[in-house]
Amino acid sequence: MTEPRPTPRPIKFDPASLKFNDQGLIPAIAQAHGTGEVLMMAWMNAASVAETLASGRVTYWSRSRGELWRKGETSGHVQRLVEIRVDCDRDCLLVIVEQTGPACHTNRRSCFYTAIRDGAEVEIMAREESGEPPG
Amino acid sequence: MTEPRPTPRPIKFDPASLKFNDQGLIPAIAQAHGTGEVLMMAWMNAASVAETLASGRVTYWSRSRGELWRKGETSGHVQRLVEIRVDCDRDCLLVIVEQTGPACHTNRRSCFYTAIRDGAEVEIMAREESGEPPG
Repeated sequence: MTEPRPTPRPIKFDPASLKFNDQGLIPAIAQAHGTGEVLMMAWMNAASVAETLASGRVTYWSRSRGELWRKGETSGHVQRLVEIRVDCDRDCLLVIVEQTGPACHTNRRSCFYTAIRDGAEVEIMAREESGEPPG
Repeated sequence: MTEPRPTPRPIKFDPASLKFNDQGLIPAIAQAHGTGEVLMMAWMNAASVAETLASGRVTYWSRSRGELWRKGETSGHVQRLVEIRVDCDRDCLLVIVEQTGPACHTNRRSCFYTAIRDGAEVEIMAREESGEPPG
């Protein structure tokens, strides 16, 4: 009879263990749960990572306004957190979300609505209803 | 009888029209064609965007080596370009790719193999075969 192997102790996640850039920010890619659509890329600081995890509401850092940006606070186009994933270099986050309404301030489902095809820019996504100011 | 409406002239894409950061770089998110899996995030400069479009082989800028990084050149884990998309602020790219082998230098399919669950870090993806040095 062999001893049961000890279960590896889970590593407690500490936002300070991420690699932030010299402005204290880390890029965060928002991906729609279910469809896998990439919705947007924005920036987080340690406080917004912590608030996102604590509240379950995705919160970025607005570089233009210099403040926490609770996504959808004015537009209602909130992102409910499903899961945060960290990349191998710990310098980028993938945030799986349940998106209410369009993610983009232009009222498109995703910010990536312009494709480069045959050397030209092509809009591949129509506008939906109301929006919010850019972050 | 009404005149036919003129077809809007396509906007020719110029890599210089993107918004690069003060190091001349733009974040590029690689997403797998078909599955929609987010594979990695790396950086491009104007030359690597142009080379990616011209060659159909995804080429980043390696910040650690300070040179063009033709993804998979040493490992064979190349990314064939399907399409580049530009976001609303023109400061982030979504690159749809056909990935050969694992995308991550740790030999995982994606670099985002660590999930934060109940406050702890959990590995959600196993290693595959051979790899390449990080970019």
